[in-house]
Amino acid sequence: MIALFSDFGSADIYVGQIKMVLSKLAPEVVVNDLFHDAPNFDVVSSAHLLSALSVNFPPGSVFLSVIDPGVGSSRGAVVILVDSWWFVGPDNGLMSVVAARHSNVKYWRINWRPEHFSQSFHGRDLFAPIAAWIAKGEFPSDKLESMTELSVNFSENDAFSIIYIDHYGNSFTGIRAVNLAFDREILINGVAVRYANTFSTVEVGHVFWYVNSLELVEIAVNCGSAASLLNLRVGTELTII
Amino acid sequence: MIALFSDFGSADIYVGQIKMVLSKLAPEVVVNDLFHDAPNFDVVSSAHLLSALSVNFPPGSVFLSVIDPGVGSSRGAVVILVDSWWFVGPDNGLMSVVAARHSNVKYWRINWRPEHFSQSFHGRDLFAPIAAWIAKGEFPSDKLESMTELSVNFSENDAFSIIYIDHYGNSFTGIRAVNLAFDREILINGVAVRYANTFSTVEVGHVFWYVNSLELVEIAVNCGSAASLLNLRVGTELTII
Amino acid sequence: MIALFSDFGSADIYVGQIKMVLSKLAPEVVVNDLFHDAPNFDVVSSAHLLSALSVNFPPGSVFLSVIDPGVGSSRGAVVILVDSWWFVGPDNGLMSVVAARHSNVKYWRINWRPEHFSQSFHGRDLFAPIAAWIAKGEFPSDKLESMTELSVNFSENDAFSIIYIDHYGNSFTGIRAVNLAFDREILINGVAVRYANTFSTVEVGHVFWYVNSLELVEIAVNCGSAASLLNLRVGTELTII
Repeated sequence: MIALFSDFGSADIYVGQIKMVLSKLAPEVVVNDLFHDAPNFDVVSSAHLLSALSVNFPPGSVFLSVIDPGVGSSRGAVVILVDSWWFVGPDNGLMSVVAARHSNVKYWRINWRPEHFSQSFHGRDLFAPIAAWIAKGEFPSDKLESMTELSVNFSENDAFSIIYIDHYGNSFTGIRAVNLAFDREILINGVAVRYANTFSTVEVGHVFWYVNSLELVEIAVNCGSAASLLNLRVGTELTII
Repeated sequence: MIALFSDFGSADIYVGQIKMVLSKLAPEVVVNDLFHDAPNFDVVSSAHLLSALSVNFPPGSVFLSVIDPGVGSSRGAVVILVDSWWFVGPDNGLMSVVAARHSNVKYWRINWRPEHFSQSFHGRDLFAPIAAWIAKGEFPSDKLESMTELSVNFSENDAFSIIYIDHYGNSFTGIRAVNLAFDREILINGVAVRYANTFSTVEVGHVFWYVNSLELVEIAVNCGSAASLLNLRVGTELTII
Repeated sequence: MIALFSDFGSADIYVGQIKMVLSKLAPEVVVNDLFHDAPNFDVVSSAHLLSALSVNFPPGSVFLSVIDPGVGSSRGAVVILVDSWWFVGPDNGLMSVVAARHSNVKYWRINWRPEHFSQSFHGRDLFAPIAAWIAKGEFPSDKLESMTELSVNFSENDAFSIIYIDHYGNSFTGIRAVNLAFDREILINGVAVRYANTFSTVEVGHVFWYVNSLELVEIAVNCGSAASLLNLRVGTELTII
């Protein structure tokens, strides 16, 4: 399976072109739109979200992951193998969180450049072919060079900020739930938010934090929008009290 | 075929996770994104839209249908077989309209709970596996208990309100066209709207009602937005005059 | 492969119904959502975008292309074969740009009307079945009539206007890059825009034009929105200076 993760926009013209390449090179491989509306150019938030989302995928899954404000610059291109999951994309930190949180990681630099190569769309021209070959079991050794670490590394630590807001207004933090005791409160935009087990245990319209389906701490409102109520955006910082 | 119907948002991170489960458990089954932008938490409008949309799907199709404001509460989980179509989702009325409109319906309660079970994402953890097994012909009898009726039932009657507005501004009512004579007018937000056969038979910018492609009565404007012109929203009520 | 191109909206209920038809009639054919958020009813801009997007698809690809403000009127329905690519849709000019730019084109009028035929959704009822049969190699000769040219023709010339704006605000012109020398400037909404090779060669926030991944001239801002900065919309005209 190839899972696509990007800021290309689910309504834009880019994802279809990537899928054209994948279906040309690996028509028998399942392609899954994991997420295409990551906040534009926000590599840090996306790195934390990608780390949380990649859990539970079957062994051998390939994550074609592109948040790439530096496309066309000299930033590197990379393939990593984290336990049994592959990640293909820019070497700009996007994969550094998932890599830092696992001990069994291998790294390759993508040296190959295709004949037709747009400077602004490496997702289609560079990363998609590499992902297609890996997903169908044809590791392109001749196009890669082994290396020992990523060029850009973020911390493996949790992010104490909002990393994603869904269309309901539920606001994901970058805090893994195992790292936060239920009796702690979260101070965010001047409001102290308490834990509740789930939506239906609080009154409609009330704000709470809970452990969401990605095992991250999430700020939510029962049948309402936490983002609107507390004026949250991706990047809003928070404090544990 | 599994058809997905939800308010999860086509731009959000939820649909991809459901598809991951489906492709793990039933990789050979076609998955079709029928609709993911149902109005948040609006079970009544969605129940009417789901009933209209499910017509014409091939026998054996499985509708994984999740509009679920009560996720995590004690609301039940259900599988129903309506003629030859399966529906899997919450027992909160979402399937009650399609069920009430057919005479040949069977019901099962989902008793099974998976090992990894998020209280906020039954679509991924509970409904998707059940849908996958049914779609590939492995009815999970050991996880279901037969029952005689749904817990929440809406009327089989038409809904005299707007149940869906598309991005053009075309506004679907919950009225089945067979129930409305062409010489009747629809009074909505103070405007009396007359029937026309189709878009190109009225002048650009004029409002009319017609029988849309789901065999529902729809308020439309030729090359314009009925929703903007008449200030319509999902839930806006109407009267036949 | 069937590639879908429309203004049906990626968040609306229409694409799923088209895919239902395709998976009923041609379950083994890959279906690719190329683009569903073309500007509503804008046949001219879409014709230029479709021409640019269809390059690079594999031989035999079928483009099910529907921008159709005249659906239900007397406008014709058409199949064309351009070199080795098929296009199926309304005969309203949408395919005229790609046709005009190639010398090897064949044309057929769709005379067939299906038993169940919505006047407002030819994409589902008329064009999808035709596309499905062609894609699986069963050319429906009995439903088509050969003809010598399209009914509506736009010029093969470039469009000196904005034809598409992506969610970053990058603004595509209808100018093929081979037709514009790097030393020319583009005057648009009162601003003269110079060429740069790519995003990372200009300062953050600066506007430039460059050759994008579709080989079209694009107005862009490094890590910013050209559309916002210059108040651009689809249809905004420009002058070469």
